[in-house]
Amino acid sequence: MALVVQKYGGTSMGSIERIRNVAKRVAKTYDAGNDMVVVVSAMSGETNKLVALANEICEFPDTREYDVLVASGEQVSIALLAMCLKSMGYKAKSYHGWQIPIITDSAFSKARIESIDDTKVRADLKDGSIVIVAGFQGVDKDGNITTLGRGGSDTSAVAVAAAFKADVCEIFTDVDGVYTTDPNICQDARKIEKVSYDEMLELASLGAKVLQIRSVEFAKKYNVDIHVRSSFNENPGTMVTKEDKDMEAVLVSGIAYDKNEAKIAVMGVPDKPGVAAKILSPLSEANISVDMIVQNVSEGDLTDFTFTVTRADFKKALAITKEVAKEINAKDVAEDENISKISIVGVGMRSHAGVATQMFQTLAKEGINIQMISTSEIKVSVIVDAKYTELAVRVLHEAFGLSGK
Amino acid sequence: MALVVQKYGGTSMGSIERIRNVAKRVAKTYDAGNDMVVVVSAMSGETNKLVALANEICEFPDTREYDVLVASGEQVSIALLAMCLKSMGYKAKSYHGWQIPIITDSAFSKARIESIDDTKVRADLKDGSIVIVAGFQGVDKDGNITTLGRGGSDTSAVAVAAAFKADVCEIFTDVDGVYTTDPNICQDARKIEKVSYDEMLELASLGAKVLQIRSVEFAKKYNVDIHVRSSFNENPGTMVTKEDKDMEAVLVSGIAYDKNEAKIAVMGVPDKPGVAAKILSPLSEANISVDMIVQNVSEGDLTDFTFTVTRADFKKALAITKEVAKEINAKDVAEDENISKISIVGVGMRSHAGVATQMFQTLAKEGINIQMISTSEIKVSVIVDAKYTELAVRVLHEAFGLSGK
Repeated sequence: MALVVQKYGGTSMGSIERIRNVAKRVAKTYDAGNDMVVVVSAMSGETNKLVALANEICEFPDTREYDVLVASGEQVSIALLAMCLKSMGYKAKSYHGWQIPIITDSAFSKARIESIDDTKVRADLKDGSIVIVAGFQGVDKDGNITTLGRGGSDTSAVAVAAAFKADVCEIFTDVDGVYTTDPNICQDARKIEKVSYDEMLELASLGAKVLQIRSVEFAKKYNVDIHVRSSFNENPGTMVTKEDKDMEAVLVSGIAYDKNEAKIAVMGVPDKPGVAAKILSPLSEANISVDMIVQNVSEGDLTDFTFTVTRADFKKALAITKEVAKEINAKDVAEDENISKISIVGVGMRSHAGVATQMFQTLAKEGINIQMISTSEIKVSVIVDAKYTELAVRVLHEAFGLSGK
Repeated sequence: MALVVQKYGGTSMGSIERIRNVAKRVAKTYDAGNDMVVVVSAMSGETNKLVALANEICEFPDTREYDVLVASGEQVSIALLAMCLKSMGYKAKSYHGWQIPIITDSAFSKARIESIDDTKVRADLKDGSIVIVAGFQGVDKDGNITTLGRGGSDTSAVAVAAAFKADVCEIFTDVDGVYTTDPNICQDARKIEKVSYDEMLELASLGAKVLQIRSVEFAKKYNVDIHVRSSFNENPGTMVTKEDKDMEAVLVSGIAYDKNEAKIAVMGVPDKPGVAAKILSPLSEANISVDMIVQNVSEGDLTDFTFTVTRADFKKALAITKEVAKEINAKDVAEDENISKISIVGVGMRSHAGVATQMFQTLAKEGINIQMISTSEIKVSVIVDAKYTELAVRVLHEAFGLSGK
């Protein structure tokens, strides 16, 4: 008898009819003789609706209360799924994060899981119950509700799989697996059968939207195999697993894009040591993650300092940066929400030169100007004008031979 | 410095704009130098939406999961109100039932409050925080979420007021107070300035809809004065308090109606001792409250046994009764959802005879047939065809001299 952790996202849970289908799929795996822990997200659209309420009531919602608000979405899902399974004659029991408990730190809206107590859930599993866990949320040591950030249910699922030493963690979503790029943009996109944790980290963090980045970090740390697959069919999806030789043979595994960032540039900064820290530390104190950072060549004693943040943090980051800019006598602060990040990813890059060059040439040929560049061992990212997103993805997908079978 | 408990219902919390108004009113009372605990309901319509989801997914939703589902409505309200107060510069902190905790028994959907721990909330009050509590819900000893039944937020508020020995418990609602009857039915209805706990109990349990019955029981037990008033104006409302001499001078204080019951009749029951218990005990085991009970005169060895339950319990009660009817060889089970309960209430009845007779004569004059009768010291209730509800209320209101000022 195996222990299977399944996670169903918002689209899979998006209506009563779809929840019934999830229940049937869960029941099928249970009937095959497995212990089952099911992690679910809020019904699609619900979290956005709650976020809209928060933004309507005030400009900067208190983060503790924000988490209380948005965590209510999963509460609805777990109850409905448990009801449905019970009405089908199965033992089922829903759990909030705080009931297990899933203990996190107190970084509201971006909390990190610290520990998961398996006592109660183990007892239920032993009793033959299907255990349903609210994704996306936990509780801190003081009993405050916390959430893990958008897409946090993936992380919940992998963390639960790790804590319970599950045999497999199946993440059900509305796509068939991880693709070489977004099929909505590029019709030739192809499903990847197997991808390494590191590649997936880059693809996820760069906006491939299939798995939340932290869930992959967790999976890598605890060596949890993730099977990403569709809740709408029985096809095998993509296995996210340890790197192997086959993977290295491929130069670029996928092209990712992310329209969810915005650019802030501090212009005319006195070029002295410590300036970068002065600009960035108030942001990290406010728990804002900065993604790409570029410091341009100085003109005389002045330099331009440019960085990107997520759009969710943009307003707050801009306000903080304007404060700092005054303090350090910068000339001006420029902003641009109209950008897009395009990235090529592949463990094969480690052993092949010239991949970045080929990327820049491909974009140049289409007249796409590159605003910022950032590289790592297995990826190259560029910031371009948002209007070029689709074009850039398509030409790169073609250039690196990812199209078709 | 006084401790004020305020409770705002679903209509008062029905939109972002209304929540802002609630926040302003709370802030005003706080600024006047009071400690504040605010109990809130779900935004109007939300609980109904959640109940509809439950009924859509299965016929008899599991009660534990049902409570998990419907408790999510208040979670949204507490977070939004706390956010709003914080954005106005006040210290505020939201609490779920389980965070305080408000400990209840495990009768899901009808749980009763057993104890309220005041440690955490006292600390927050001392710290100058406005404490916002989710109404309608608690947690049982095993950590399961429970709810107190529809209108349970009133009970939460009074229980919190009792536990914290609050100086006053203000229940804000969408009406100006308790009326002699429903102003929507009878234009002459008049606001009552002061009403006794017992009268209010009858009025509330009979469907006056202003206060939940259990909140009044709680208030009576712990001697909490309740001030029922409108959240949309500054008018004084109705004080619900201990009985006094003035109240006794009035024959009938109010006319209540309740369209939320349904009738079940077990026909042709063998008229033996213990039959009533046989019919009723499976219902009470299923946690279904039976309201009015009538056993008709026997024909030969057979009797008819008729009772009413709330419409929410009706389907379940009918199924159980049909089972029992088979066991006890009853001839048939008849059902009627199309009924209405009309009641006259007043502590003055204790010292005046003939009130019931006057009621029956008034109804007879209008050709309204009485199907069932039930009386207590301070009220008389009758079951009539639902179509006569409004007519019956109006003629009784007139007959007992309640109209106008």
